[in-house]
Amino acid sequence: MKEYLKYPGEHIDDLLCDNLKIIQQDGAYKFAIDSVLLANFIKAGKNDRIIDLGTGSGVIPILLCAKTCAKEIIGIEIDEAACSRAKRSIKMNGLEDRAKIICADLKKAPKIFGSESFTVVSANPPYMTVDEGKISPNQSIAIARHEIAASLRDVVSTASNLLTFGGKFYMVYRTVRLVDAICLMRSFRLEPKLMRFVHPKFSEGPNLFLVMAKKGASSGLKMLPPLVVYNADGSYTDEIIKIYFGSQ
Amino acid sequence: MKEYLKYPGEHIDDLLCDNLKIIQQDGAYKFAIDSVLLANFIKAGKNDRIIDLGTGSGVIPILLCAKTCAKEIIGIEIDEAACSRAKRSIKMNGLEDRAKIICADLKKAPKIFGSESFTVVSANPPYMTVDEGKISPNQSIAIARHEIAASLRDVVSTASNLLTFGGKFYMVYRTVRLVDAICLMRSFRLEPKLMRFVHPKFSEGPNLFLVMAKKGASSGLKMLPPLVVYNADGSYTDEIIKIYFGSQ
Repeated sequence: MKEYLKYPGEHIDDLLCDNLKIIQQDGAYKFAIDSVLLANFIKAGKNDRIIDLGTGSGVIPILLCAKTCAKEIIGIEIDEAACSRAKRSIKMNGLEDRAKIICADLKKAPKIFGSESFTVVSANPPYMTVDEGKISPNQSIAIARHEIAASLRDVVSTASNLLTFGGKFYMVYRTVRLVDAICLMRSFRLEPKLMRFVHPKFSEGPNLFLVMAKKGASSGLKMLPPLVVYNADGSYTDEIIKIYFGSQ
Repeated sequence: MKEYLKYPGEHIDDLLCDNLKIIQQDGAYKFAIDSVLLANFIKAGKNDRIIDLGTGSGVIPILLCAKTCAKEIIGIEIDEAACSRAKRSIKMNGLEDRAKIICADLKKAPKIFGSESFTVVSANPPYMTVDEGKISPNQSIAIARHEIAASLRDVVSTASNLLTFGGKFYMVYRTVRLVDAICLMRSFRLEPKLMRFVHPKFSEGPNLFLVMAKKGASSGLKMLPPLVVYNADGSYTDEIIKIYFGSQ
């Protein structure tokens, strides 16, 4: 592990998966459980070419290197500091042959890579519109949490543009905007085919959902069993332990 | 209980709620758990005027008489035999002052009652398109199960037409067509605001969902905890027992 790739004010976190590590900055946006759940939800084979839109510090591409055998995994991120960390994390983990980070606006991805150039697109978009909640004075956190650099519509329309016919778009998002997400997907020819709800506890309604939408597919949604994060006593459920620590 | 209202070939079922009964015909379409769950999901006050679209044998209006204090509850049904049973069931239960059955195509409801004439609309629409599954040779069953007399679009557009601004549309439907339902609702200005998934067992994905959509509302969906029908051992869950037998 090349520790020298870490800059001052940064720290290295263990991803608890195949000995992978990630560089994160103190006080900046840090990846959360939603990204780990999304990486775990994605299915990709050796012929797949994946792009992760708004990849932040690159947690999804790094995990996908371990969890799939996709031949190429791109992460695109507009925030330069996050990009720098993502690039160094990939180098630190020795994944340069499969994963690559591009520092650019995700909306420019079709121009950079060409339309219909990926078989899988993933995204963990900012959850809040600019009218919701307090926007962080920290630009990196603000971009990751609020629709400042890209809206949900931008993410969905870009994903559709980048995907081949039959290609798959994987997203994690909050349930309060489920209707927005589903209607946008269909309007951009990304038909939701598989969905899984994430419940903080079993006795609570879900607050997040994982969705796989297929470009050009016909209507027909399959629902997976609920994914519950915590037991009633506040401990992690067996499934979450398996997702988090399964590859240890 | 006026047993003489029952015709040959019919039988009387106990609704297990406030001593209410319902006339059903042997070999015809019989109400199922989805209608009971929907009736239980609906909230209405004394100033509400409710219409149930495609009411079949009237199970939802009858249950709503017990479960809400709505002043007027209409059921509209195109199938004449089902209508006759629904009318007689209402008479048998002595509910003529609050509940009324109209034998007509639900698409004609806005013409019959006027646009924006109800504060609550409910529907348990046929679950299958005409291209799915085997259509029953029994006309009453065919109409109840397949989109022969009315499609999901007809139901949603009619509900929107009938509702006052801010009025509520309650529906139960199968999850495989969740995307169709949600996108249709939004396109007809019925914004889904509250949703609850129905799981056969906790370890299984949901197969039905209950939704409340509000006419003219803005985006923002609240998700309720899962409604689980069976325990792992095949017995009913406590919540289902409470819904089914709670008023005994």
